[in-house]
Amino acid sequence: MKFTIQRDYFIAQLNDTLKAISPRTTLPVLTGIKLDVFDNRLVLTGSDSEVSIEITIHSELNHEEILTVEDKGSIVLPGRFFVDIIKKLPADTVTIETNDQFQAKITSGQSEFNVSGIDSDQYPLLPQVSEEEAITLPVKVLKNIIKQTNFAVSTSETRPVLTGVNWLIRDNILNCTATDSHRLALRKLKLEDTNIDEINVIIPGKALSELNKIIGDNEDTIDIFFAANQVLFKFGHINFISRLLEGNYPDTSRLFPEISETALSINNGDFFHAIDRASLLAREGGNNVIKLSATDNAVELSSTSPEIGTVKEDVKTSKFDGTGIKISFNSKYMMDALRAIDVDDVRVEFFGTMRPFILKPDEDDNLIQLILPIRTY
Amino acid sequence: MKFTIQRDYFIAQLNDTLKAISPRTTLPVLTGIKLDVFDNRLVLTGSDSEVSIEITIHSELNHEEILTVEDKGSIVLPGRFFVDIIKKLPADTVTIETNDQFQAKITSGQSEFNVSGIDSDQYPLLPQVSEEEAITLPVKVLKNIIKQTNFAVSTSETRPVLTGVNWLIRDNILNCTATDSHRLALRKLKLEDTNIDEINVIIPGKALSELNKIIGDNEDTIDIFFAANQVLFKFGHINFISRLLEGNYPDTSRLFPEISETALSINNGDFFHAIDRASLLAREGGNNVIKLSATDNAVELSSTSPEIGTVKEDVKTSKFDGTGIKISFNSKYMMDALRAIDVDDVRVEFFGTMRPFILKPDEDDNLIQLILPIRTY
Repeated sequence: MKFTIQRDYFIAQLNDTLKAISPRTTLPVLTGIKLDVFDNRLVLTGSDSEVSIEITIHSELNHEEILTVEDKGSIVLPGRFFVDIIKKLPADTVTIETNDQFQAKITSGQSEFNVSGIDSDQYPLLPQVSEEEAITLPVKVLKNIIKQTNFAVSTSETRPVLTGVNWLIRDNILNCTATDSHRLALRKLKLEDTNIDEINVIIPGKALSELNKIIGDNEDTIDIFFAANQVLFKFGHINFISRLLEGNYPDTSRLFPEISETALSINNGDFFHAIDRASLLAREGGNNVIKLSATDNAVELSSTSPEIGTVKEDVKTSKFDGTGIKISFNSKYMMDALRAIDVDDVRVEFFGTMRPFILKPDEDDNLIQLILPIRTY
Repeated sequence: MKFTIQRDYFIAQLNDTLKAISPRTTLPVLTGIKLDVFDNRLVLTGSDSEVSIEITIHSELNHEEILTVEDKGSIVLPGRFFVDIIKKLPADTVTIETNDQFQAKITSGQSEFNVSGIDSDQYPLLPQVSEEEAITLPVKVLKNIIKQTNFAVSTSETRPVLTGVNWLIRDNILNCTATDSHRLALRKLKLEDTNIDEINVIIPGKALSELNKIIGDNEDTIDIFFAANQVLFKFGHINFISRLLEGNYPDTSRLFPEISETALSINNGDFFHAIDRASLLAREGGNNVIKLSATDNAVELSSTSPEIGTVKEDVKTSKFDGTGIKISFNSKYMMDALRAIDVDDVRVEFFGTMRPFILKPDEDDNLIQLILPIRTY
């Protein structure tokens, strides 16, 4: 194989491909990037066997020549090391040529590298995802869904299904649920023009956060294809494939209480920063617990650590219904939830000191953050 | 004690004070910042017992009121935790008030912290440096000296004196020498208006790099005072005091050879980047060794690692005297030296394949970088 490519564009695509590659892999060939050169295109593949990224580079981009192919062929080159070389080469273009011993000659300006590669036949085949059961989402919406739910997945492997986000499509509504059993995030989205009867899958949290990093701002929409144990996200010239988690996701629908005892509206930023400050002391004290006491027109936050000191914060509420309440919570869960809500006015509803409480955007039921309190009062 | 201070300005000074504080200290009180409040000023002190920083905040700065003192007094507050609180407070000013139990009440807007402090009597006294033997340097010159020498100090404690930079003043010339016994950096500077007979001290490399970080671009000059086992750098409202290293610094003057066998001039950037690329492979191969072969008008750099591959780089020379030479070196030492030289044209002089070679700015003898070759040819 032999081709010449614009170095800057190549670097950007290689960086995206690297995102699927883990230095800790059981299969050594997966530390490499596979290059497949066809008549008028180059396909880059990176994979850690959980997530695979496949990027197609065509000869031309916006009527500008990016890639010139002289000879077709394939090779696997050592991932990070190869990308480091390409990044540091002196000229605007780079030429890569392989021989029968899987050696790649990389030339650019007065610089010449000869790098040992691996036969691409040793690279595992990527799963084929049928393109039947599909939905299309605006990129902005997908990024929002990931931001609003993904932080709440469990980081512990005790219950593997909880390390993923449950995507349930039923009655033309997409329900995305994540929980680590201390807090839960639920985002609902009405789907237009879908012929899907029912989809119920668990997408690994890690895959979604990698996906979030790789989706550029250039794309308008993303196509999502569901198969038995894979999901394919297709946008621009990139295919992003993730394995699905096996197992049954718990039914969380009955967790949501009906009628609140106390409900208030509060400024997101003021509330967030007050918790952030109180958590400095809560963290230093080692337990992250903040006490909240809500009365008619203000919320008082406090935390105490006998050896270190105390903190007290007051935040005004804009609406208040029901009775006063005292409740304690983990500051990290509260800050994560407020960050995910990301609108100026937040609605907080309490159902008693010992029961989970919920946060959502004021006047919007499509996003709900639920948090279990901590018993201290 | 009780005072109110502009929060932004306070944060900047606290951040500088923190630079002297190490979380790993044998004396717990040194994890704190000492605050001494006088009639019209506040003095902040941080120390790890090797390096101490003392910052004076006056009531007014550029005719603007920064600090209002209500009550004098002293306290030691938990360093990083205290600074984190001040950073996150909501209002433009913060008020700090202490009671007899060494509790500090910190208030700003609707936020109130009560933090346990320590009696300032428990804080060690800072060494007093006599202000007799002094030199004054432009800040830019001092920063340059640090940049050109400090990287070459030893990181190993086998010979503790080599972890510092030797400052030798004799015949009105300041000679700064650093070596880790594989390479050496020497910077000479003619001093004007000094009455110093002879100074021969070893300043810890770590102290110089902290000093370099803390010197702002606002100051024009810096005063340096030498005492038996301390050095004081005084600039603006900051006193920076470092312990000196004990022991005798080796005499390095006879290391410099006289007449070169090969001498060449080369573009710094081209040479640096070619070595940088070659070092990718040298590093991957595990030994960092690059071979150099200099002939009439070009330098060829190469590196080989049987399992990984080979690299070859060509860089043109602008001047060349003497015979061709082949020599091998550690790429890191070479790149450090070229970075320190920091002018477009570098002079390289060789004295034989087995002898140290030197690099310096073309047409300037006040900076010399010496590197020991590695035996491979």
